[in-house]
Amino acid sequence: MPDTGLLSPGWAGTDGTVPLSDEAWVQAMLDVEVALARAQADLGVIPRAAAESIARAAHVERMDMTALVAGVHETANPVVALVPQLVRAVSEVDPVAADYVHRGGTSQDILDSATMLICARSLTALSADLRRTAAALAGWVTEHRDTPMVGRTLTQHAVPTTFGLKAAGWLHLVLDIEERVDHLLHNRLPASLGGAAGTLSAYAEYASLAGQGTDERGIELIAPFAAHLGLTAPLVPWHAIRTPLADLASVLTFTATALGKFAADVQVLTRTEIGELVEPGGDGRGRSSAMPQKRNPVLATMITTAARQVPPYALVLFQSVAAEDERSAGGWHAEWQPLRECLRLVLGAARNAAELATGLEIRPDAMMHNLGRTGGAVVTERVSAVVTPLLGKQRAKRLLGAATATAERTGEPLATVLDKALTEAGSPLPTNTLADLLDPLNYAGAAGPLADRVLARYRAGAADTTRAC
Amino acid sequence: MPDTGLLSPGWAGTDGTVPLSDEAWVQAMLDVEVALARAQADLGVIPRAAAESIARAAHVERMDMTALVAGVHETANPVVALVPQLVRAVSEVDPVAADYVHRGGTSQDILDSATMLICARSLTALSADLRRTAAALAGWVTEHRDTPMVGRTLTQHAVPTTFGLKAAGWLHLVLDIEERVDHLLHNRLPASLGGAAGTLSAYAEYASLAGQGTDERGIELIAPFAAHLGLTAPLVPWHAIRTPLADLASVLTFTATALGKFAADVQVLTRTEIGELVEPGGDGRGRSSAMPQKRNPVLATMITTAARQVPPYALVLFQSVAAEDERSAGGWHAEWQPLRECLRLVLGAARNAAELATGLEIRPDAMMHNLGRTGGAVVTERVSAVVTPLLGKQRAKRLLGAATATAERTGEPLATVLDKALTEAGSPLPTNTLADLLDPLNYAGAAGPLADRVLARYRAGAADTTRAC
Amino acid sequence: MPDTGLLSPGWAGTDGTVPLSDEAWVQAMLDVEVALARAQADLGVIPRAAAESIARAAHVERMDMTALVAGVHETANPVVALVPQLVRAVSEVDPVAADYVHRGGTSQDILDSATMLICARSLTALSADLRRTAAALAGWVTEHRDTPMVGRTLTQHAVPTTFGLKAAGWLHLVLDIEERVDHLLHNRLPASLGGAAGTLSAYAEYASLAGQGTDERGIELIAPFAAHLGLTAPLVPWHAIRTPLADLASVLTFTATALGKFAADVQVLTRTEIGELVEPGGDGRGRSSAMPQKRNPVLATMITTAARQVPPYALVLFQSVAAEDERSAGGWHAEWQPLRECLRLVLGAARNAAELATGLEIRPDAMMHNLGRTGGAVVTERVSAVVTPLLGKQRAKRLLGAATATAERTGEPLATVLDKALTEAGSPLPTNTLADLLDPLNYAGAAGPLADRVLARYRAGAADTTRAC
Amino acid sequence: MPDTGLLSPGWAGTDGTVPLSDEAWVQAMLDVEVALARAQADLGVIPRAAAESIARAAHVERMDMTALVAGVHETANPVVALVPQLVRAVSEVDPVAADYVHRGGTSQDILDSATMLICARSLTALSADLRRTAAALAGWVTEHRDTPMVGRTLTQHAVPTTFGLKAAGWLHLVLDIEERVDHLLHNRLPASLGGAAGTLSAYAEYASLAGQGTDERGIELIAPFAAHLGLTAPLVPWHAIRTPLADLASVLTFTATALGKFAADVQVLTRTEIGELVEPGGDGRGRSSAMPQKRNPVLATMITTAARQVPPYALVLFQSVAAEDERSAGGWHAEWQPLRECLRLVLGAARNAAELATGLEIRPDAMMHNLGRTGGAVVTERVSAVVTPLLGKQRAKRLLGAATATAERTGEPLATVLDKALTEAGSPLPTNTLADLLDPLNYAGAAGPLADRVLARYRAGAADTTRAC
Repeated sequence: MPDTGLLSPGWAGTDGTVPLSDEAWVQAMLDVEVALARAQADLGVIPRAAAESIARAAHVERMDMTALVAGVHETANPVVALVPQLVRAVSEVDPVAADYVHRGGTSQDILDSATMLICARSLTALSADLRRTAAALAGWVTEHRDTPMVGRTLTQHAVPTTFGLKAAGWLHLVLDIEERVDHLLHNRLPASLGGAAGTLSAYAEYASLAGQGTDERGIELIAPFAAHLGLTAPLVPWHAIRTPLADLASVLTFTATALGKFAADVQVLTRTEIGELVEPGGDGRGRSSAMPQKRNPVLATMITTAARQVPPYALVLFQSVAAEDERSAGGWHAEWQPLRECLRLVLGAARNAAELATGLEIRPDAMMHNLGRTGGAVVTERVSAVVTPLLGKQRAKRLLGAATATAERTGEPLATVLDKALTEAGSPLPTNTLADLLDPLNYAGAAGPLADRVLARYRAGAADTTRAC
Repeated sequence: MPDTGLLSPGWAGTDGTVPLSDEAWVQAMLDVEVALARAQADLGVIPRAAAESIARAAHVERMDMTALVAGVHETANPVVALVPQLVRAVSEVDPVAADYVHRGGTSQDILDSATMLICARSLTALSADLRRTAAALAGWVTEHRDTPMVGRTLTQHAVPTTFGLKAAGWLHLVLDIEERVDHLLHNRLPASLGGAAGTLSAYAEYASLAGQGTDERGIELIAPFAAHLGLTAPLVPWHAIRTPLADLASVLTFTATALGKFAADVQVLTRTEIGELVEPGGDGRGRSSAMPQKRNPVLATMITTAARQVPPYALVLFQSVAAEDERSAGGWHAEWQPLRECLRLVLGAARNAAELATGLEIRPDAMMHNLGRTGGAVVTERVSAVVTPLLGKQRAKRLLGAATATAERTGEPLATVLDKALTEAGSPLPTNTLADLLDPLNYAGAAGPLADRVLARYRAGAADTTRAC
Repeated sequence: MPDTGLLSPGWAGTDGTVPLSDEAWVQAMLDVEVALARAQADLGVIPRAAAESIARAAHVERMDMTALVAGVHETANPVVALVPQLVRAVSEVDPVAADYVHRGGTSQDILDSATMLICARSLTALSADLRRTAAALAGWVTEHRDTPMVGRTLTQHAVPTTFGLKAAGWLHLVLDIEERVDHLLHNRLPASLGGAAGTLSAYAEYASLAGQGTDERGIELIAPFAAHLGLTAPLVPWHAIRTPLADLASVLTFTATALGKFAADVQVLTRTEIGELVEPGGDGRGRSSAMPQKRNPVLATMITTAARQVPPYALVLFQSVAAEDERSAGGWHAEWQPLRECLRLVLGAARNAAELATGLEIRPDAMMHNLGRTGGAVVTERVSAVVTPLLGKQRAKRLLGAATATAERTGEPLATVLDKALTEAGSPLPTNTLADLLDPLNYAGAAGPLADRVLARYRAGAADTTRAC
Repeated sequence: MPDTGLLSPGWAGTDGTVPLSDEAWVQAMLDVEVALARAQADLGVIPRAAAESIARAAHVERMDMTALVAGVHETANPVVALVPQLVRAVSEVDPVAADYVHRGGTSQDILDSATMLICARSLTALSADLRRTAAALAGWVTEHRDTPMVGRTLTQHAVPTTFGLKAAGWLHLVLDIEERVDHLLHNRLPASLGGAAGTLSAYAEYASLAGQGTDERGIELIAPFAAHLGLTAPLVPWHAIRTPLADLASVLTFTATALGKFAADVQVLTRTEIGELVEPGGDGRGRSSAMPQKRNPVLATMITTAARQVPPYALVLFQSVAAEDERSAGGWHAEWQPLRECLRLVLGAARNAAELATGLEIRPDAMMHNLGRTGGAVVTERVSAVVTPLLGKQRAKRLLGAATATAERTGEPLATVLDKALTEAGSPLPTNTLADLLDPLNYAGAAGPLADRVLARYRAGAADTTRAC
């Protein structure tokens, strides 16, 4: 009975572009066996025809999945039981070729390379959703470059900002993700080939028995093997040098939490009392089983759920780096499932983020309304800058603290209270000046030019199809 | 396509006693809907016949799993889409009863109660495997109470101990787990019933419309509901009071890591150079795809892999405690899948531990051989206790440090080197005394009586069928 | 130069009731050496006078802290360098007694017992702050038992609740914490005594040399040793059986995150737009360096910061359970600092929670105002319960969904829209009934009685000075 | 009373090259205030003389540390209380200049920039220790390129390898760390400047009041400010865009766990029964308080303890990325202390690794001895490659499995058993061939050339002073 996302709102319903199922993983392992055979054929170690027969037989549909899982309980990995199944399948196509299956191979070469293959496919799909998200956000930044809203720190109104800059922050994060994903995808996903303990000895032995031994004693196999898989060729085997897993952990964690920042902001801004954003709706989207009026921010919720899970899961990958021996007894084995969950959750979050960014409803009127709620107190920082030279730092601070407190307590407009206080203090400001100072729309600082900077980065990146780190 | 354990050696092949699949979870949700209907029938809020019709229809086979998963993407939980499916299924059996499905219900009541049901079943199964493990270990403690072996600290030979005490330590941990699991199972798995925001208001409203309203305004429904599920009745709804999840996280984490301690020791003791233990074999158990001679400690490896994954997964549960509002937007949703993974891994680890404990091969000769490797240096602590009064603390320490270093460097027996040194220092010991002092078999301290203490605890617990915390 | 909390707002300024400094830890280690000597004197293994001389000398002021730290770099623990310092200090008081210091002792006995001593003191202090918090919350529950406020789920208004029930949820969590802390404090903090590898052999050897050897071979020392420390006597040494650390990790994590739930709710309710709660103020409390008008919810922020840090720190403790050998090479050593940080953060969070709970400003008018914001949509669940029997489930749902959407879009009162829609549907409700149905104050369900239940639990616990788990 | 490393063997005694104390952090904050003033002077916003007066006064010795910590409890950060202290200190030097302190500044600008400054210094020191480690390891790789040892997988002897390749694996990891540290140090540590909510508004306001306002409205201040600090200038303020923290978390975690891999291997290889490596000694290094003969691998233990703590601590940093608003209420505050602990532990681990790598004792005789322990079974993989063509895959596998089992059981040499079995099977091999096949020294595969590859990478990197990612 399948796990389908039923208990994983972080990716439910978004799985599909990249298969991450057991079958997908087995097919990837078979693809690796084929690449191994073909690379050995390239070097004359096994007959070309044998390699092609192996390729013809290496399909997951021919494998007995139940037996594979049973094998995991016997040997702690799925490859030991896969090899004889592949041998049998090849025998049916070409009995002679069966002897050439998995020549010199070891479980870890097959499984690690298959994992990298799956990661490469996943990151490619991820990039597409990130690009959709970035495009949507760039649209909002452009459209709302100067839409005023309140900036909030420690949950309280701080100073004015713009929705353009808010969205530019999200866009900047998405571009940061893209940069890291692209770098990883093009440079840091190596094929894995090392043999039983990372010396390539059996590969060399078979080459030698076939009269094809070289001074490189097996190293010559790495490049064609990686090429057949479309993966980077590693400098040395990485069975026990788990840098690629740490790099994946870094990027997947950052992706989840950076999208989680976007979601966290959306959750605040869709609160009933705030109402500055509304999630894209649709038939049943966001509905409750009990309350007919509700429209829950479910996309943000589903992204948040991913952001909460990925970092601890990825921790398992990081911790596997510090494992003993040429292959650890447990560290390696602990990587597979959390990596799969991270991929699912990150792909799910990116898909949901694209949907959220694209369909977001923005309510400038609510933003304006909220900006006015404190009656101008939101710009006391500015007033402070102006009156400090007149009154000195300490008096200015005291006067402003007292005025905002009075305005809040009495309900009197801050402008009135301030006017009175400044007059009493002997430093009245012209009424126009004060009104102007207290207008939040005049105090967005560099919000516009900063948003432009992010847009420029976006456009430069979008123009550049070969982004580097 | 299923997740079956293919990438989860921590539980592959041990799943089966307790279904933790999507279907099992949906069936548990349906069981909860039935319990709700029956409890409402008990109170006269809905007709008894309707409740029984709901029970007849509430089977996972009648549900469309694909639609449920699609629903998760719309509403971030699987219950919203389940309710209309159940309504439809009930309609087919008894159209009148359909209206009584999920009366006053909210997604969280259904899902949280289903989760507790699954946890109760899982912990029951866990207990059985823990008891098997304890029984096997108690057997080894008894049999090897006085089998000498070396105690190791910071990877180095320290002083002698016994295999009986080593196994008693593992047994003690298993008994510690049992205590915590039993306490949790019998006291800390409450049914969940609170309605939309934990006030039970809709339940009260329906009761009132049926002329059955009480001063308790819905609270009266909690006890019969919990009774139908065989779960504890909570004092108050715990939608936003996630203590039960934290309690589960604590016990599951401890179970995984305590079994992980057993596995870590087995991994050390099965090392080729140490060879004091051998894992139970069998046809393909522990075989490698490349090296015909290998017999890997795969059971210990599979337990270790669980011990590496459970603590980070359980972290997600702990962190969900600190969530906002009457139902959080992401915290709750992040609990389900990591909890399922923890249950699977812990159940798998307990099953593997039982198999490992039962079938362990113990090699007293290798233990004895290793104990002798340092030529007596392993008991210098004892010699130190004896000569310190003769020479004073500082001289004794220096003399012993020098003697063990000399023996190690020259290969001369430590007894000879020490005899010479003590004579030179003017404090010779009779040859017999020295030989006796240097015999590791005479220096196991309280290993035997300590092992007896753990055995006594085991027997007391095994006799007591109603263990308390 | 000290770490004083400068970078730890989670506990800065709350440290003081329980010293957790390096000096406090060293003093605790010295206290353990004294307890060991006194227990050995009790059994006649060393002279009573020697034990008392050791007690006279065992003060942290006499130790050279810099040398101790340098020793840590040599031996990976602070005890190896401490023992000769203590010997020297004792020599100055009583040269004969110096030989009786640390007889049979091992670093781990001293350090683990000292840690338990510190934990016992910390949990005692924690309990006091939890009791203050509980008392303050119980006061709010009583005072605001029937103060209406909106219940929020997934950030949206759901159905009405009361502030009494909200605070009762926080109180319930605090009582859950107290239960777990008390149980831990009275049952789960054992002294540690095992000798070099957990066999007590050197203790037995010294007893034997003093003519006091027993059949228990050292076990007889455990009870008096633990009694001198005021700690539980363990059944067997737990050097390599780290259950006490896992139990601490569980309770500390839960404490931090449960208090974190309180803080998370306060952060939502103090948002500028919501304003239902205000943190206790004071001179500089919550002030910003830039914005004179701001009053940040800093107590909640400081509790939140603890709740974010403790679970990952405690993870290190959990993971140390799965360590190899009679003493692990790194697992044990990784426990000390994260445990100290957890204690500091949890003590800080409890102190801040007490201050927050005690001084909270509650604004029932803002609660009432917010409850009315959706114009009655917040009780459509109730309307649904009433009209479903009239219209059937599907029609009722559709009608209510449409009506709330229309009201929200047009700004027309929901009562009017609904009246029209029900009339059109042929099921008009009397105007009074409809008004009554739409009044949020009539739909708090069991909020009152549920709050009473928690208060009753609080009072029962406060009456019971010997609470059990 | 200070925290000095007493409970932190992961860095005790290695702290010193980079101060990470409270005072160091305060000085860094003061350095940032100076940079702000100087940058404003560069732009004509404040008088040059004022900036230099600020610089003269901005020394930690003039600050009241106790008051700063007390301030943290009031405002949840140390900057709010620092500013008036700095104002006072500047007043004493130059009363006019006092008004120009912290103009437009916000706590987060000061603290985040100070943190980046500390990180830059830390990573620079880290690089130096990594280079020492790499140099030492490169020496071992060269010296032991062809020293045979056994490769171990899942704790069991697998196939032969060389110590050269083993050390090359560690070197490769150290070079991977260096690459990531260098990239971070030169590209990813930006100064932080944004003002109250990331719009730079107050900076613009003060510039405008000084008649220096620009169209960039404050952005023009970023570049000179970053230049004065020697940090990267950010494209936009990153108050709420925590990519730099995630990047640090990634690199620090990887550094700790990659060095942890080195330590884990050393721990295995120094086990009493294995003895292939011995840690560098010294007077008290690795001594036990109880056992005079012991020499514990304390450097590896101290690195391991860091590797166990850093990943969970860094998790806090990762999780802070997903924080709400323009400044979160708790997420930001939770970063500081775990980041400091990570820096300390990583610096400590690197220092200890350099000491360990430099002083390692290598025992080729023990390696050779262990390689021979299985009597040739360690090369059955090779024999399998040779006899498979003769017997077919299945028969070959059976024959070899049976032969190794017989040899292990009976103690007969594997060569003899195999000779007999092959003869019986009708495929005898010449005695010379068989002896040659079973000689582990002939089966190191590409170990030598692979070690050369890592050495070449090391030399290329050492030659290149401007390494890129």
